[in-house]
Amino acid sequence: MNQHHVPQLIDIQSAHARIAPYIHRTPVLTSASLDEIAGAHLYFKCENFQKIGAFKARGAMNAVLSLSEDERSKGVATHSSGNHAQALARAAQIVGIPAYIVMPHTAPEIKKKGVRAFGGDITACEPTLEARESTLAKVIARTGAYEIHPFNNYEVMAGQATATVEFLEDIPNLQHLVAPVGGGGLMSGTLLAAHYLAPTMEVWAGEPEDADDTYRSLQSGQIEPSQAGSIADGLLTSLGDKTFPVIRRYVKGVITVSDHEIVAAMRLIWERLKIIIEPSCAVPLAAVLKKKETFAGKHVGIILTGGNVDLTKACELFARYT
Amino acid sequence: MNQHHVPQLIDIQSAHARIAPYIHRTPVLTSASLDEIAGAHLYFKCENFQKIGAFKARGAMNAVLSLSEDERSKGVATHSSGNHAQALARAAQIVGIPAYIVMPHTAPEIKKKGVRAFGGDITACEPTLEARESTLAKVIARTGAYEIHPFNNYEVMAGQATATVEFLEDIPNLQHLVAPVGGGGLMSGTLLAAHYLAPTMEVWAGEPEDADDTYRSLQSGQIEPSQAGSIADGLLTSLGDKTFPVIRRYVKGVITVSDHEIVAAMRLIWERLKIIIEPSCAVPLAAVLKKKETFAGKHVGIILTGGNVDLTKACELFARYT
Repeated sequence: MNQHHVPQLIDIQSAHARIAPYIHRTPVLTSASLDEIAGAHLYFKCENFQKIGAFKARGAMNAVLSLSEDERSKGVATHSSGNHAQALARAAQIVGIPAYIVMPHTAPEIKKKGVRAFGGDITACEPTLEARESTLAKVIARTGAYEIHPFNNYEVMAGQATATVEFLEDIPNLQHLVAPVGGGGLMSGTLLAAHYLAPTMEVWAGEPEDADDTYRSLQSGQIEPSQAGSIADGLLTSLGDKTFPVIRRYVKGVITVSDHEIVAAMRLIWERLKIIIEPSCAVPLAAVLKKKETFAGKHVGIILTGGNVDLTKACELFARYT
Repeated sequence: MNQHHVPQLIDIQSAHARIAPYIHRTPVLTSASLDEIAGAHLYFKCENFQKIGAFKARGAMNAVLSLSEDERSKGVATHSSGNHAQALARAAQIVGIPAYIVMPHTAPEIKKKGVRAFGGDITACEPTLEARESTLAKVIARTGAYEIHPFNNYEVMAGQATATVEFLEDIPNLQHLVAPVGGGGLMSGTLLAAHYLAPTMEVWAGEPEDADDTYRSLQSGQIEPSQAGSIADGLLTSLGDKTFPVIRRYVKGVITVSDHEIVAAMRLIWERLKIIIEPSCAVPLAAVLKKKETFAGKHVGIILTGGNVDLTKACELFARYT
């Protein structure tokens, strides 16, 4: 059954046990040359190697497995242009129920193919939040499916928190943890896991300068809308009413970075760690390199959130920005 | 002291113990989507995550650590345009001796920087085998350094064999193993480790069609010169008199693949495994996809040899070939 309270430690631990058979325990990588560049000890939790290529597999799996028989009987539904769409389709396929995914018709073909590969049922809509929400409402009215929101959902939050549970098991002496913030599902889950398991560790959010709604929301004290400008296309969402209070309470700070800094950090990760990550995923390293003095000599964990990037598009970014 | 016999099992095991403190135990990755494409169970031994970004760290480290105090007293030397240069410079730096590296002036700047970063002393020469050998002879005459050949050296061979030792420890049920062949250091080490530890496993060599000297050498029964055509620039070397007899005796077969097939396989690995590999490294997967019927339904190990590729050049390859 879906919970209606902020995840407690037991909820996060239960989530981890629940999803463990269906997700990868992703590796933690290090690089002597990146440490030298940063002047710190960096640890990278590689969720780009996660199922469907992103941490979203965790939250969606936990949300689907937490549903009662009755709740899941008519399937699940969401609107998403990206990784949550694939994650939910996969989770639904695993438990044998339909997944109805509303996707803007502008979504990358590779993401649509991913959804279809897991048997997801796609409904196309215009690429606006209004169209996504109204189309989803119609799909739910028609099918009776249970909505699993990409981030504004406590089971999703508990699922995303499990990345930090593993991270702290592997690297118990982390002094800082940096993750990107979009809608705040990963960020709020990370903050809660850290609060329960490593209360002295400082957790930072990395955010694109050109989509700095979290930074502005913390300043104003209310959820500010996102302006959609950055190349970090996974981070263009504004916060939800379940994620914002957690972030506001526990985050140490938001570090904003430019698109140039994001692509430079992305290139460093490709070249030094020899792994593929998407632009959104480079934001935390860009943040650490921007505030070197904050992290100097410290043990710093970075959550690399995903690797679902079109190679041609990535090559264009490198050519344009670095 | 350097051995003058083909490595026995004990030599390979000793090499592994000797170099273990100085190398990474690299992970083995799998991908459900690549399995589906290949129609087989594929396991990827990720030497692109090895120190200096390639398996060459193993052989060079073992060769340097195997030298007597006297042999190593004046340093080590080699000619190499690539990963062995960095690997030898690193190994020499670890034991505190000079490394004299003869490199063609056409070698990529990134490789030269890598050598210098480990304190290597570079002598530039013309990009021909004759110039490389004559320049190296002069350097050795001047310095008294001990030559560590990139592949035609039994300690190097034993060092490269340790990748397969680890691979079989992690995945004991491999039925096939595929590695690329250039000068044959990795291939001969792989064959020996397989012969001792997994005698029923079939070991295949992947080779570019446009640099198929190993294929031709096995046909003619003598070492054939390499023609330098393929984009797999790590595999343009012809075999050595120490590597050829081992390959001739134990290899199951050589599978040759076109440059188009190599880049297509490289793209699959970047996109599905989310890791960076160099073109040479994609040859085994290209070989497996070319001979699907041979590997159908089998457990197939693939050694991913290295990840030192210039991103701009890689992007050009993707644009040109895929």
